[in-house]
Amino acid sequence: MACSVAILSVGTELLIGKIADTNAQWIARRVTSLSGSVKRILIIGDNLVDISKSVEDSVSLGPTLLIITGGLGPTFDDMTLQGLANAFNASLRLNPEAETMVREKYLKYEQETGRKIELTPERLKMATLPEGSRALRNPAGTAPGVLLQQGLTTIIALPGVPKEMMAIFEESVEPIVKKAVGNLSFYAESVNVFDIIESELAPWIEETMRQYPKVYIKSHPKAPEPRPLIELHFSTTSQTLEAAKEEVGNSVAKISGTILKHNGRIQEMSSQQLDH
Amino acid sequence: MACSVAILSVGTELLIGKIADTNAQWIARRVTSLSGSVKRILIIGDNLVDISKSVEDSVSLGPTLLIITGGLGPTFDDMTLQGLANAFNASLRLNPEAETMVREKYLKYEQETGRKIELTPERLKMATLPEGSRALRNPAGTAPGVLLQQGLTTIIALPGVPKEMMAIFEESVEPIVKKAVGNLSFYAESVNVFDIIESELAPWIEETMRQYPKVYIKSHPKAPEPRPLIELHFSTTSQTLEAAKEEVGNSVAKISGTILKHNGRIQEMSSQQLDH
Repeated sequence: MACSVAILSVGTELLIGKIADTNAQWIARRVTSLSGSVKRILIIGDNLVDISKSVEDSVSLGPTLLIITGGLGPTFDDMTLQGLANAFNASLRLNPEAETMVREKYLKYEQETGRKIELTPERLKMATLPEGSRALRNPAGTAPGVLLQQGLTTIIALPGVPKEMMAIFEESVEPIVKKAVGNLSFYAESVNVFDIIESELAPWIEETMRQYPKVYIKSHPKAPEPRPLIELHFSTTSQTLEAAKEEVGNSVAKISGTILKHNGRIQEMSSQQLDH
Repeated sequence: MACSVAILSVGTELLIGKIADTNAQWIARRVTSLSGSVKRILIIGDNLVDISKSVEDSVSLGPTLLIITGGLGPTFDDMTLQGLANAFNASLRLNPEAETMVREKYLKYEQETGRKIELTPERLKMATLPEGSRALRNPAGTAPGVLLQQGLTTIIALPGVPKEMMAIFEESVEPIVKKAVGNLSFYAESVNVFDIIESELAPWIEETMRQYPKVYIKSHPKAPEPRPLIELHFSTTSQTLEAAKEEVGNSVAKISGTILKHNGRIQEMSSQQLDH
């Protein structure tokens, strides 16, 4: 089985470079560790037309999951749910489950602060979902996550606030990824290579990948010539963790032999694994 | 005049969450400071089909500039130039200007290290550009940047190594953005708002933006209820820096009045400006 993922990040603050899209990176890392495969990340602004067009485009690629972050809050420029509805000609409806979630959050806030909170239209907007949606509990904030099935793709919308996004992901999205993936295991390893320049490494990497086609090898230049340092990152998924480790280990051994023969030096760095 | 920008980041390391796309953020910040406008950021893996399809998609949106980062190096998974060529049915040709640039880099390396460097196919690949391209000098590394005009869009491909990307951007891309923008000035200001929750702020922001439609206001929740802290970010571009500052100043003053009336607190944070 397999779980392909498209990520759509919504927020003008990302397009003006105010912040880096650490949400997408976090999700990509998590999905990869769970042996899922992220196919692309698209970042757009708080713009209704862009949101619905990007949702349509992303779903047309046929991913198992489309994970959207941002634009679920109460302000006028939070328009992810309207964009989702427009993409599928669905209408927005007050979702009773989501309404209960939002209402309970504000009740708790009232009790903690003694401050009266009305369920204004801005607040009820967070519980007004495209028809056919399911609300996902937000353990760390107010706006619920939203799940909407569209053909073979499960669309999940999460808030842009990192703590809330992560909390809903861990509680509600991780089980979906795990189920779609089945029992694949992921293993990755990094080594630093000194004194060999990237253009010299290039054919050795290619040769190693031909011999171990399941292992993905990527070179990252870290320090420039004339004292080059290049990180090589090896990763694979396999039926068992042992098999994944063996594939990666064999490919590291092969290229290490060539590097040492050409007077390069090698330093083992990190490894990362996930077993089901 | 205006300068709309699409960014395309190429690199599987970004899709597995190994690193954050700090290149795209840096470019977005620079373009915004120069009064240009980033419309979207797309991140894809080292995959030929994805690269050419994403280039086509991005150009079809009609941006002034499409800035691509990553995939210009010597390894087999550096395929941005092949992807560019495929997107426009162009062939790849050894570019004499680029070849000179690459040759000079390796000569310098030979002199510094006493190590002989052949111009292997992997190395010449960095000088083999889609026909019609212009090579952009890389002051910080080997692979030249590439400029290719396609209809109204100027496509620029830069290396993924941040130092090299930034060096070529500053030398060759910044003048293009400035020329496209003309003499617009950018101004932005941030304030922190305490003790008001986002759903209470929402209608006040909307009202302020109605009164000052040229100012873009975005709220960023920083601390949760019951002691809420929300950053408000105001930005605009205008013919003069004075006009931009006045627009932002007026909108900050308006919403501040409403916040203070509702027992919120306000703290001025940073400002950012660019004048031509």
